[in-house]
Amino acid sequence: MSAESDFLEHKKNALKKLQKAKEENLADEDIIPILDLINNLDDYYTSSSCYGRIVLLEIPTIGDKKNAVFLGKWHRKINTSEILKAANNANKGQLWVLAQSPIIHIGAKTNIAADKILKTAIACGFKNSGLKSIYKNIVLEVVSTERLDSPIGKDGKLFCDDEYLDLLVEIANDIMDKSGFKLNKFEKELKKL
Amino acid sequence: MSAESDFLEHKKNALKKLQKAKEENLADEDIIPILDLINNLDDYYTSSSCYGRIVLLEIPTIGDKKNAVFLGKWHRKINTSEILKAANNANKGQLWVLAQSPIIHIGAKTNIAADKILKTAIACGFKNSGLKSIYKNIVLEVVSTERLDSPIGKDGKLFCDDEYLDLLVEIANDIMDKSGFKLNKFEKELKKL
Repeated sequence: MSAESDFLEHKKNALKKLQKAKEENLADEDIIPILDLINNLDDYYTSSSCYGRIVLLEIPTIGDKKNAVFLGKWHRKINTSEILKAANNANKGQLWVLAQSPIIHIGAKTNIAADKILKTAIACGFKNSGLKSIYKNIVLEVVSTERLDSPIGKDGKLFCDDEYLDLLVEIANDIMDKSGFKLNKFEKELKKL
Repeated sequence: MSAESDFLEHKKNALKKLQKAKEENLADEDIIPILDLINNLDDYYTSSSCYGRIVLLEIPTIGDKKNAVFLGKWHRKINTSEILKAANNANKGQLWVLAQSPIIHIGAKTNIAADKILKTAIACGFKNSGLKSIYKNIVLEVVSTERLDSPIGKDGKLFCDDEYLDLLVEIANDIMDKSGFKLNKFEKELKKL
């Protein structure tokens, strides 16, 4: 197959997968307009995405993210009480609060097309964006720098007081705000491509 | 200029800059053998790098990393007492402990060469690696996923007790260990290129 028919085949499969995710409410609702904008452009398709999220994670042993358990997951701003409630289910291992900025994986038809959308993403504040593959498939990742990766306890016990948790939640919520702001900017710029 | 003469010009300048950094002891000593290995390959040069580090950072207002002040910076494992001592100089704004894994920026002569070293880096555990530019200059970033981005206080006051700080330092040191392990693996694989 040629590079172009490869691309079209990948795009067809990705759109089918996205359609299924939409029907089953598995795609983050707020990011769908951006995915649609990208998929409506001839040179691109989206293969996966996340709007950004705040997570309470339990990691059984140090570094073992593969066996991590999500005790809480929110695609929006939260209150300290929500963290505390979710932490009640903590049992063994490290407890982490993460705030993750949006992430979008995009397939591109050509290197020039990839470079163009990459530069747009970086200009909109997604400064950790980059290409993950350029040989055979061209795939790039749109992602921002802001994040929080903060351990808050161990073996079911919190190591921090409420004042500290309030600070964490304030920062995590600020990351969610910044994510929304950058996505809005990206959405506007995509309309110009 | 052709793409090849552009590449050779960039490589020449990068090697001059690295030589100067070595002479002034500004390059992280432990990463130099890897930089030399990459620079000895015809298709690549390194433009910047960091071995990985643990940092105590003071950020004047939320999100304002541009005006952040380094209260402590270590390219090795540390003790909790070192964080506490450095935190004595805290004054205003958020206090963060960061542990950052190694980062190496590499210029490549061709897309195929870039893809080759990118796949090598990812296979050695540098899973967040990607290309930052493929048009005109081909530049890729070798970087890992492990990190700690943890606020520990505000306006000169720590929000956490010693037990919590010990946990943070344990995790930060673990990230330094993992970084060294991955760099060793990368060094071995680079010798095969």
